[in-house]
Formats: sequence, structure tokens, C-alpha cells
Amino acid sequence: MATLSDIAVSAAINCLSAILFLVAFAILRLQPVNDRVYFPKWYLKGIRDSPTSSGTFVKKFVNLDVKMYLKFLNWMPAALRMPEPELIQHAGLDSAVYIRIYLLGLKIFCPITLLSFAVLVPVNYSGENFEEMKTNMKDLTYSDIDKLSISNVAPGSSRLYAHIVMAYVFTIWTCYILYNEYMIVAKMRLHFIANERRRPDQFTVLVRNVPPDADESVGEHVEHFFCVNHPDHYLSHQVVYNANTLADMVLVKKSLQNWLTYYTNKFERHPNKRPTTKTGLWGLWGKNVDAIDFYTEQIETLSKEEEAERERVLNDPNAIMPAAFVSFRSRWGAAVCAQTDQSHNPTVWLTQWAPEPRDVYWDNLAIPYVELKVRRLLMAIALFGLTFCFMVPIAFVQTLANLEGLQKAVPFLRPLIEMGSVKSIIQGYLPGIILKIFLILLPTIIMIMSKIEGFTALSTLETHSAEKYHLFLLVNVFLGSIITGTALQQLKEFMQQSPTEIPKTVGVSIPMKATFFITYVMVDGWSGVAAEILRLVPLIVFHLKNAFLVKTEKDREEAMDAGSLTWAVSEPRIQLYFLLGLVYCTVTPILLPFIVVFFAFAYLVFRHQIINVYDQKYESGATFWPDVHRQIIIGLMISQFLFLGLLNTKRATNATYLLIPLPILTFWFFRFCKGRFESQFKRFPLEDAMKKDTLERATEPNLNLKLYLQDAYVHPVFKGSIEFERPRVVDEEENSPLVATKRSIHREGKQGIQEDSSEDIMETPEGGSKAGPSSRKW
Amino acid sequence: MATLSDIAVSAAINCLSAILFLVAFAILRLQPVNDRVYFPKWYLKGIRDSPTSSGTFVKKFVNLDVKMYLKFLNWMPAALRMPEPELIQHAGLDSAVYIRIYLLGLKIFCPITLLSFAVLVPVNYSGENFEEMKTNMKDLTYSDIDKLSISNVAPGSSRLYAHIVMAYVFTIWTCYILYNEYMIVAKMRLHFIANERRRPDQFTVLVRNVPPDADESVGEHVEHFFCVNHPDHYLSHQVVYNANTLADMVLVKKSLQNWLTYYTNKFERHPNKRPTTKTGLWGLWGKNVDAIDFYTEQIETLSKEEEAERERVLNDPNAIMPAAFVSFRSRWGAAVCAQTDQSHNPTVWLTQWAPEPRDVYWDNLAIPYVELKVRRLLMAIALFGLTFCFMVPIAFVQTLANLEGLQKAVPFLRPLIEMGSVKSIIQGYLPGIILKIFLILLPTIIMIMSKIEGFTALSTLETHSAEKYHLFLLVNVFLGSIITGTALQQLKEFMQQSPTEIPKTVGVSIPMKATFFITYVMVDGWSGVAAEILRLVPLIVFHLKNAFLVKTEKDREEAMDAGSLTWAVSEPRIQLYFLLGLVYCTVTPILLPFIVVFFAFAYLVFRHQIINVYDQKYESGATFWPDVHRQIIIGLMISQFLFLGLLNTKRATNATYLLIPLPILTFWFFRFCKGRFESQFKRFPLEDAMKKDTLERATEPNLNLKLYLQDAYVHPVFKGSIEFERPRVVDEEENSPLVATKRSIHREGKQGIQEDSSEDIMETPEGGSKAGPSSRKW
Repeated sequence: MATLSDIAVSAAINCLSAILFLVAFAILRLQPVNDRVYFPKWYLKGIRDSPTSSGTFVKKFVNLDVKMYLKFLNWMPAALRMPEPELIQHAGLDSAVYIRIYLLGLKIFCPITLLSFAVLVPVNYSGENFEEMKTNMKDLTYSDIDKLSISNVAPGSSRLYAHIVMAYVFTIWTCYILYNEYMIVAKMRLHFIANERRRPDQFTVLVRNVPPDADESVGEHVEHFFCVNHPDHYLSHQVVYNANTLADMVLVKKSLQNWLTYYTNKFERHPNKRPTTKTGLWGLWGKNVDAIDFYTEQIETLSKEEEAERERVLNDPNAIMPAAFVSFRSRWGAAVCAQTDQSHNPTVWLTQWAPEPRDVYWDNLAIPYVELKVRRLLMAIALFGLTFCFMVPIAFVQTLANLEGLQKAVPFLRPLIEMGSVKSIIQGYLPGIILKIFLILLPTIIMIMSKIEGFTALSTLETHSAEKYHLFLLVNVFLGSIITGTALQQLKEFMQQSPTEIPKTVGVSIPMKATFFITYVMVDGWSGVAAEILRLVPLIVFHLKNAFLVKTEKDREEAMDAGSLTWAVSEPRIQLYFLLGLVYCTVTPILLPFIVVFFAFAYLVFRHQIINVYDQKYESGATFWPDVHRQIIIGLMISQFLFLGLLNTKRATNATYLLIPLPILTFWFFRFCKGRFESQFKRFPLEDAMKKDTLERATEPNLNLKLYLQDAYVHPVFKGSIEFERPRVVDEEENSPLVATKRSIHREGKQGIQEDSSEDIMETPEGGSKAGPSSRKW
Repeated sequence: MATLSDIAVSAAINCLSAILFLVAFAILRLQPVNDRVYFPKWYLKGIRDSPTSSGTFVKKFVNLDVKMYLKFLNWMPAALRMPEPELIQHAGLDSAVYIRIYLLGLKIFCPITLLSFAVLVPVNYSGENFEEMKTNMKDLTYSDIDKLSISNVAPGSSRLYAHIVMAYVFTIWTCYILYNEYMIVAKMRLHFIANERRRPDQFTVLVRNVPPDADESVGEHVEHFFCVNHPDHYLSHQVVYNANTLADMVLVKKSLQNWLTYYTNKFERHPNKRPTTKTGLWGLWGKNVDAIDFYTEQIETLSKEEEAERERVLNDPNAIMPAAFVSFRSRWGAAVCAQTDQSHNPTVWLTQWAPEPRDVYWDNLAIPYVELKVRRLLMAIALFGLTFCFMVPIAFVQTLANLEGLQKAVPFLRPLIEMGSVKSIIQGYLPGIILKIFLILLPTIIMIMSKIEGFTALSTLETHSAEKYHLFLLVNVFLGSIITGTALQQLKEFMQQSPTEIPKTVGVSIPMKATFFITYVMVDGWSGVAAEILRLVPLIVFHLKNAFLVKTEKDREEAMDAGSLTWAVSEPRIQLYFLLGLVYCTVTPILLPFIVVFFAFAYLVFRHQIINVYDQKYESGATFWPDVHRQIIIGLMISQFLFLGLLNTKRATNATYLLIPLPILTFWFFRFCKGRFESQFKRFPLEDAMKKDTLERATEPNLNLKLYLQDAYVHPVFKGSIEFERPRVVDEEENSPLVATKRSIHREGKQGIQEDSSEDIMETPEGGSKAGPSSRKW
């Protein structure tokens, strides 16, 4: 195992690489030519423009002001300067709450670090179990760090009571901070929602599994059903077309157009030579043709096909999927419909809040109930396989990274390995890197799995992917590293142990793996975050596009890739740090400062990124917070069970009983918070809906909602392209004779008033959903 | 362990006692004097009257018609004669579905019994592992029955594939039947609800945790909140008074009145001697006084106190609990309110369907959110303690019942024990009886625990008690008997075994406990059911009351105790038989016929009881079915895991892998059914609400709903006693300026029409809730 000096080398390497990244970032961001890579958010908001051409030609690309280079860290205070309300206004609630997760980490771990250094480190250091430990366990290697950890406390020692008391203090502190944070985020969400502008999804419900009807089309069936069952509130609906083929065509066409632009540019620069291309795959083989003509022709052909397909989709009744977006006269009506059961057959007429238009995942809108259930089953089995079979390669590679094992496996490498610096590098850097490479491949697979599961909104896809990824990290990175790291063969034994034995086995290896996790925090946390701010991939891509595809200012706008927070990947990783901190705070406190540094650094970097770079694809109004809360609690409970197991091996059985209430109370706290807060993130209460409705009715009595909602939920490929044939609005009063006539008369009157003022539309749905801050539900 | 002849003795004893009970029942039920004990249902329905006094004096009490005694079993075909629709009409859906559970048992186990006798019994019998088994395991005793069980198949034998195939067949058959039954019950419920008459709870929602308001009373606050947030649908509300003291007083007064009646009767029979009583506790000591005067005076004092308390409750604002029954203009409005969140703080304004008035558990209506959560936590811990500490005495007693152990423990009893018949009785009868006595004490404790947990309806109390009791039976009767029965010390080892070891340990003891469970089925099942039909306790109580308290025909009516299905006790017991059947169908098929006989006999008896005796306190419309379904699936999965463990010990590892998909698919089936059917039992879909509303509006356009609902949810102690001061109905239009005026004008018009016809009430709420079949939700 690594010694303190190994750790120091690793820390030096990682600090160095982090600083290199930061310096590179500091230099690159000051070059005007990179401005669109490092400040795309401002361009998208229209506040910043391309550098003016007032200066010299060189100044347009390179910044020559030396003074600015000296202050290369000045982005840090700048990142902190923007106050939170302005941040929400600027980047949305999702982003603002996302960086609060890092802040939460600081809030939890700063006091815990101080306390454990003040109490546990002295208790451990004076424990003097070290010599005995060294002699007793020759098969397992111990290091200096263990002198500061619980390993240095003799079994059965009364010093362990200090650890137990601290375990209680840490748990109570964590729960207190979690509760406060939940309350704050809930308030932020409420405030955000209350101040939101009108948006189409506030009035709209997604209806799935519309049952087939022999006499009526899907559109008519939806219309009649909601006219009858929500007579006072139903406004209109939008059927969903199966436009997946069409969407593919649009994508292909866009790529062809890129090639055309590329060759046109090329031709313009060298007007004497017309560019050629080959007709085969990727232009690698086939007949040589004139490139510009070839692509122009290809695009024309595709355009015609696209037109035909568009016609087919719009006119073929089979292209209409059994799903629809149903809009209501008021937010109240939509809230009611989204929260209630419509039919006594719970597999048809399923209603849920419509995601905001940008958030809809169109491919999954029409999966029948039974198929959905089968898909879930298959994906659950696949997830199990993925989680538990991924372990094998990781375990193999990690055993290699154990130097002693490596020397035995490849003896001829021994002289090289025994060189001091090489040894340190291998031990300090390699295990983290190996793990990292494995993990890069994963999120894509997991996202595909979530898509197969059939969720209908991008935000849901992300949260479900995050959950899967969290499970994966927990089993493979955390448990996998702890168990297979000490001995690969323990894996099999582990499966045959009793439930009380498992925490013991894991618990006893935890102190020994502290050094591994310290290097992991530095590689994945420190360097990883520093790499994030450098944005190397978007930088390269932007300059490539700029060189070959950009002709107009609009092209340059499109070449800019602002990126966004990748929730499905980032959040589970943060959770891993929470877990490490909570597990090690009672065991090996020396790990805590590394975690705190990570949280502080990441907070800075992501605050900067959110202000200057990321452009969120959708806004969910922090609906993800219950997941964050739950996963931290899971980490807390895991840490408690492992600590219980560890204490058990310390021959402190009586002391152990003192710890049993801890997980029970933590679980109760979780249930309590769930009941207290969760529904604020999942459902929309009628009181608030009514308030917003009433206010709107008072301020804009002449609003024509129908027109406002008309094209909000049209599939993106249809948008703006052709005059879209909408189903005729059935006159509900005539067609639903069961509805009492008194109501109908009244409603007709009201409708009349509204329709008289159809000129008075204040904003279009696109405008409403793109400009300004917005959340999933007002 | 018991041999085949032990079983035969036990069967003989139990058959005899069952037959004795049946004969006693046959004789007693023919006596006119017992008519009200054995046919109370008909009296309550008003179809049957007290025997006419046309015959001789003797004939009024004793039936002298000999022919009727000969046909002493003729109640059985009579019980089967009533067709199901009529049964639902007669006894309600709850009862009709309850006996379908027994029918379900027959449907599942009849084919399984046939199949396992045709396939598994021959396979086992020709296994010839018996001699080896006998010599190998001297510490554990085997019996002849094991020749027919899987114990007789040699480890690693390919005969085990027959068992695996059968396990699949049995599971598929069980799931098929379960699915069908779920569908049938769901349809019955739908049909029942659709045909139901108007009932107050169809329009009413129970609102709990009304937040305190500085300026308004609870009533005003509720009124304003719902006027604002459900402006088109809110009708009226009924605040809840804390009348628990008053209810106690009413109870005490009733008991005093009973004593007065008793002494008055006594005086009338012996007019020359005025009865006396003592003033102390239970009339045992203290001053001697004239009994009639004493009780008359006591009742008068109490009446005055009661009146004062009644005044206090009605006028003291602190006696109003922060809960209310809110009624709506339509079922649609109530369905919406019950299914949606009202406020963004999910701990206030909690809405749920109002239980039907008879079903309300008034004591629990005002528990604050945090207190409720703490109560749940405490009761969960208490349940854990109850479940796992009850094991100790049972284990002790059961070890006694193991004859060999008994001989060792009390050697001087050896001559007595070795007498053949005594031995058989002890072995066959005792363990079952002991278990039974333990279990009689339990349901009361569990019900108290559920009450502390804070549920607001009797039906919910019963289902939650049933769940707790089910857990208890599972752990203590089933697992407890299997593990502690073979060896008490296994209990401790059991806690330290691995998750894969537990099914093995339990699995290997299962075949050995078959004889114990056969006697258990006979004692608890056969004799227990026969005792149920005899109704010994109600018989005695009725005759005591009849002798001392009855003066008028109305008194006799009240003395009659029809009883009802005790769901919290009966259902978990049935589940135990399902579990036994499912576990033993692959292991020891000889147990199956005993289970089948139990289901058939119980079906007959309970059908008879439901037709002639029980009077249900409330009607929930079979909302309990999802619980029944879930618990059978739990039993199925337990049986699969135990079978897996058993096979593992048979050295058939490869064969075992074939079984792993079984529990996974079963669990998926459970999830599938839950999604497919459960919401039909929990929520009320808007489509059906609207249908019923529309129909009613068409058939009774002049109904005054407000008057109909006025007193539906008044606490029973207030009912009919005094003119109950109702809060003035706030004129909502004036007081809620936020509501758009267009709507208000319209509504005022509508209300006007309704109130003009306030004379046209069709039925009172009490009438609606008592007469005819009725379910919780229409």
C-alpha cells in the first residue's frame, strides 16, 4: 500500500496537472478567437458580440495585453460575484441548485473535518496499535496513514466510544444540514414557480395510451373524452405524429448541407480548382464527381423525399400515435387532469404533466402498457448484469495496480518498478486512471437503457440514468475497489457470507483503502474539474468548424457548442464524494481535507461555467432535488452499516449496540423529509394553480389562450415549415349531450368573450419557452 | 416425529370434534329460542320476526319436529343455493368477495393436488433414499410420511427435474388463477360501484391538518379555502368536534341504564322485595342502598353532566378539531379534491376520500403531521419487537411438545408418555392447541397498535392490522415452527448465516415439519371453522342478556349480536394456508388434501354465516383485494426461495440455476398486476364520477344535495339528540373577490334553481347508508 510519500507524489502530480489546466485556461480564454468557446452563454443571451474589427488584424485573434495575463486567476472572484437571485435569472433554477450541491458538500464536511481533526486524529494517533497490527497482519499491507486512522486503536479499547459519539454527531449534523437545504431548495422552487411567465406546459397534459376506437380517429376520441369528462376545462389538443423517419431525414439533410458548405468554402478560397469527392461511403471510394454539384443534387433529392414523407405523415391515420397533448383553459384544469385517474382501466388514458416542449422525448410517446412493463423487466435484468459483471475487468486491472501483485505477475519488470519515482507514479496515478477510462464508456450505455425503458421527457431520462449510474458507482467503484482491491478471491466468499458478516468484511478493509481513495479524489476530482474548465474538446471542435463550415455570422453562432450540465454523469459522481466523506469521517479523517478541497474547487469552477458557458436544454425547476437528498441519505446509511461492521471486528460488541438506533433514525428522517417536502417537487398544488390563474385573469382578461397554445406541442420537424393542418375544433356543446345545458350555456358565453379578443396575443409559445428563466411547471 | 398412525389419531380426534360441533349446531339452530343467534341477519333485514306465539308454550322454545333433526346437514346445500349477485345484494360486496378467497384456494389447490399426486408422489415413493436417510441423520427424526416426500429422493438424483418442472407448472397455474381472479373482482367492484345508490361519502372529502389561522375559526378557514380553490364545486362542510369525553359519558350512561333495567326486571318478578345494591365498585362493598333509586339518580346526574359537556363541546372553539368533512356539488368535484394536492406544504390541507359515515374512526382525526410520523416509527419498532420476541415462549413450548425432548426434560413422566394413546394425543394435538392459545391474545394488541398509528377509518384499521398479523404469522407460526421445532439452538445460528444459507437451513427442515403442519391444519382449520358455525360465545351472551335485560321487543333486538367478519384476524390465517399449500406442493404433497378440505369446508361454513348471521359494520367495496393478492404472491415467492434452498442441499446445483428465473418472473407478475388493477381499488376515476353525476342530473334535476348532506358526518353522539347548531353558510360570491365574477353569476343562478326545490329530498343520509348494499366509493 501507498505510504505518505506516495500520497505526496500523487498530490504533487495532480496539483501540477490541475495548475497546468488552469494556466492553459487562463491564457486561452483571453484570446478573442476563443471567446465563443469560453463565453458562449453571453452570446446566446445576445449580450456579447463577436470582437469588433476596430483593432489590428492580430488583435482580433490574440490578446496582447500583458497585464491581463498576470491576473490569470481573476475568474475566481468573478465567478463568486454574481448573487444567487441574479444567477437564477441568468442560468435557470436547475443550474443554480446544481451548484448548491457542491455548497452542500462544503457545509457538511467543513465542520466535520475540523471536528474529526480536533477529536479523532489525536485519539487515533495515541492509540498505539500500530506495531501489533504490523506484526499480526503480514498479508495485508499497512501504511503511515493508518497511524491516524481507526486501525491504530486497539480492539476493545474504550477509545472507540469517541468514534461512536462522533458518528452520532456527524449524522445529526448531516441530517440537520440536509433538512435545511431541502427547505431552502423547496422555497427557491416555489418562488421560482410563482414568478414564472406563462408557458404552454402549464396548461398542458400529456395523455398516453389512448385506447383504439373503431369509429373515431385518435384526435376525435381524445376530443370527445375530454369534452365529456372535463367539460368546464378542456380547451384543445394536439395529436402526436410518428415523425421519427422524417426527423432522421432532417438530420441527414443537415449533414449533407454541412458538406456542401465545406466544399463551397473550399472552392471560394481556391476558385481555380473545383473540389471533387467520391460517391461511396464517407467519400473514400467510388466514382470521382464534382463535390458541389453532387451534394446540391443529393440535397434536392432528399428535400423531395422529405416533402413526400411529410405529406404522408400528415395524411396517414396510421402515423398518428395513440398519444396527445391536451390543453386546458386554466392551470387549475391541467393540474386536476394531471393528478387524477381518468379511466377505471389504469392502462389507458394515462395522464401526466406535459414536459415543456423542448424537453419532450418524442420517440417514446407511444409504447403500450404491457410492452412498457416488459421493457422495464428486461432493463432491470440488464442493469443487474451491467452492474455486477463490470466488476470483473476492474478487479483484474486493480490487482495489477497492486505493486506487489504486479511484481509477481511480470517479474522481468521488477527493476523498472523498483525505481522510486516510477513506483510512486504507478501506485499513485494508475489505479485512478484505469477506473476513469472504464467509466467514460458507461454513461452512453446507461442512457440508451433508459431510453429503452420508455421515459417521455429528457429530464426524466437524465434522472433515471443518474440513478442507474449511481448504483453502478456504488457497487463497482466503491464496494468493488474496497473488496477486490485487498484480495480478488474475497469476491466469491463475499457472496456466501451472512448479512452480519458483509459489513464486517467491508468495514475491515475500509481503513486500508484510504490511500487509494485519496488518489482517486485527486485524479477524478481535482484534475477532472480543472479539465472541465479548459473545455478542450469543444475548443477543438469549434475551431475545426470555424475553419471549414462557417461563412456567415449565423453559421458561427451554430458552430458554437455551449454544452450543458450532464446531470446523468455529474450528479452520481458528486454522490461518490459524499459517500467517501461520510464513510471516512469516522475511520480515516485524513481523507476529508481532500474532499473539502474538491467541493470548494468544483463549486468555483461550475459556478464559472454556469455563468459563462453552459446553456441548459430544458428547465425542470430543480425537480431532481429529492434524488440528491435520497442518495446522500443512502450514503449516510451505508457509512453507518460499514462503521457498525468495522466496530464489530474491533471486539467492541457492547459499544456496537449503541450504534443500532443510528440507521433506524436516519431512515425515519428520510421518510419524514420525503413526506414533508417531496410532493412539492413532483406535483402541482391546486392552491398555487388557482392563484396564478386568478392573477392572470385579472391582468390579462383578453388573452386568447387557444391561439397561444396552438403550435406549442408540434413535433420540432414540423415547426415553422408548412402550414400545419389542425383538426377542426369540435363544438363541444353540440356533441356532448350528457353535459348539463346550464353549464354549457354559461361556457359558451365565456368562450365568446375570449374569442372576440383573439388579436390580443401577448407572446408566442416559442418566445415564452426560450426567453427568460423558466421551469417545468410554472 | 409423528408417524402415520399419529396423524390418523389426530385426524380422528379433529374430525370427531368437528362433527360434534356440527351436530350441536344442527340441534341448537332448530330451537326457536336460538333463532336470533343463528339467523340474526334476517332479523336485521326485517324479513324474519320472532317466532309467533301461535303454538304451545314449549314450542316457542324447543323444536319438536323430529324430521328436521334427521336432515341435520341440510344447511350445507342451502348455503350454496343463493347465487352470487343475490349474495352481493344481500350481504354486500365485501362479504361476497371474502368467501371468494376460499374459492380461490380451491381453484388453485384442487388441480395442484391432483397433479402432484399423479406425478410427484410416485416419483418420491420410488426414490428409495429412506434407509440411507434414516442411518445418516440420527439426530433428526423421520417418519413414514417422508417416504412420500422429496426427502425420499437421493441427493443429486435426476428425479429432481420432475420437481423443478412441477414448480414451474404450479407457479404458472397460481399466477394464471390469481390474474383471472383479480380481473373478476375488479369487474365485480366496478359493477357494484356503478349500481350503487347515492351516498354521502360519494360527495365528501375528509380534510385533515387544517392549518391554524389567527383571524378565522377552523370552519371559516375551511370554507374560504375551498371557496377559493374549488369555486365551481365546493358545496358545504362539517367541522369535527372533539367529542371523545362525551362519547365516554354516553357509554357509561348506557351501562347504568342496563343495570337499572336489570333491577327493574328483578323487582317486577318479585314485587314484594325491592332490590338493593352497594355503592362501591361493581356493587361489591360500600353502603347498602335501594338499587332502583340509586341507578335512577345516577342516570339523572350523568344526564345533566352530559348535557353540560355537550353544550361545552358545541360552543368551545377549542373543541373543534383541525379537520373537516368537505362536501362538493358533484362526485367529479369530490374525486378531484381527493386525488389532488391542495397546498404546496404537503403537511397541511391533506385530503382523502371520506370514509362512509359508519366507517369513520373519530378519535384519530386530528393528529398533527410530525406526531403521526413519530407514532409510525414507534409502532414499527413495537411491531418488530412483538414479532421477534414472541418467538421465545412458542419455541419453548414447542420443544416440550417434542416427545423425546420432553422425556429428557421430565424423566419421571416417562411411563405416562410411553402409553401409546397418550403419546399420540400429546404429539398430535398439543402443539396445535398451544399455538392457538398464544394466537388468541394477539389480535387485540395488534388492533391497538394500528389505532395508535393514527388511521382514520375502521376499514383501514382492519387492513393494517391484518398486514401486521400476517407478518407475525409468517415469522412466528411458519418460520418459527420450522426452525425452533427441529432445534431451538438453530435460532441463534440462523441470525449469523449468509443470505444463501438461510433458505437452505429452512428448506431442509421443511419436509420434516409436514406432520406438524398437518395437525395444525386440522386443529386450527377444521375444528376452528366448525367452532365458528356454532357461535358458542354469542349464544351464551344472548341468553344471559335475554334473561336479565330484555323487556321489550326492541331490547331483544339490541341483545342480538350478529357479529361480523373479523378481517384483521381471518384473512392472515387464510394466508397461512395458502403459504402452507404453496410450500408443500412440491415438497410433501400429502399435506395438500388437508388444505383442500379446509378451503372447501370453510367456504361452506362462511357462506352460511354470511347469509344468515354476519352484519357488516361497513362496506368497502372489496378494497382489500390488492392485499390478498399481494400476500398470496409473497407466499408464492417464499415457497420458491425455500424450494431453491432445499434443492441446494440436494446437491443439485445445476438444476437449481433453472429455478432462479422463477422468483424474478413472479415478482414481475406482481408489479404487472399492481399496475394493471390496483388503482381500480384505491382511486376513483373521473370518467365514472362524471357518468354517475350526469345520470343523476338527468334523473333527479331537482335534488337538494346540501340538505341531503347536512348531517351525514355529524359525530354519532350528536346524532338526532339536539338541534345541532350549524355554521352559517358564508355567501361565497361576496367573500371570495378573487373568483372571477362571470363564474359567480353563473353559479348563483344554478344554486338558485337548486334551492328553490329544497322540498324534494328523496332520502336521508342515514337511510342511504344503512339500507341496501353499499360500498365505500360508489
